[in-house]
Amino acid sequence: MSERLPKCPIARTAMILGSRWTAQIIRELLDNDRRRFQDFSDGLDGITPATLSNRLKMLEESGVVARKIYETHPPRADYVLTAKGKKMATIIGAMRDWGAKYG
Amino acid sequence: MSERLPKCPIARTAMILGSRWTAQIIRELLDNDRRRFQDFSDGLDGITPATLSNRLKMLEESGVVARKIYETHPPRADYVLTAKGKKMATIIGAMRDWGAKYG
Repeated sequence: MSERLPKCPIARTAMILGSRWTAQIIRELLDNDRRRFQDFSDGLDGITPATLSNRLKMLEESGVVARKIYETHPPRADYVLTAKGKKMATIIGAMRDWGAKYG
Repeated sequence: MSERLPKCPIARTAMILGSRWTAQIIRELLDNDRRRFQDFSDGLDGITPATLSNRLKMLEESGVVARKIYETHPPRADYVLTAKGKKMATIIGAMRDWGAKYG
């Protein structure tokens, strides 16, 4: 991240989750193991390619998501969660529960 | 909220937590019970009054935060969490744990 890292751990997490679509991108990867760019576009109703690209880059820079390139013709890229990204399952699960009951 | 309500419960939660400072405002209220505008300004390093005002209004409209007005001279306003807002403790706790370990 280009911003300096805040001391508060909640603020550090919010730097990642605190922009629209990021929680849903992580949920797509928790539910589906690996996704291509087009899979996110299809699964996330209303996201533009530019926003999706920006969020995936941000999640890669934060070490939450990794991109795997396959040297096929044409080359193919899959997005997966890193170990650190998978540990966000608790947060996403708590967000799901709260949203289902009170959101 | 002015946006139409998304079907995905994670998206509904992210509408609230998905903008900078909101998670930290809720944490301030979980830790402190009631806060005045100035308390947030003092506790959240770097927030501008305009942003704080915008976030508190958004949290009020979402039913997460309530404002109590006291008819003192001058009148005083306290912000507190609603029952729905208090239930966000699980999410904020999970964000704190993740941020402390991996953020």
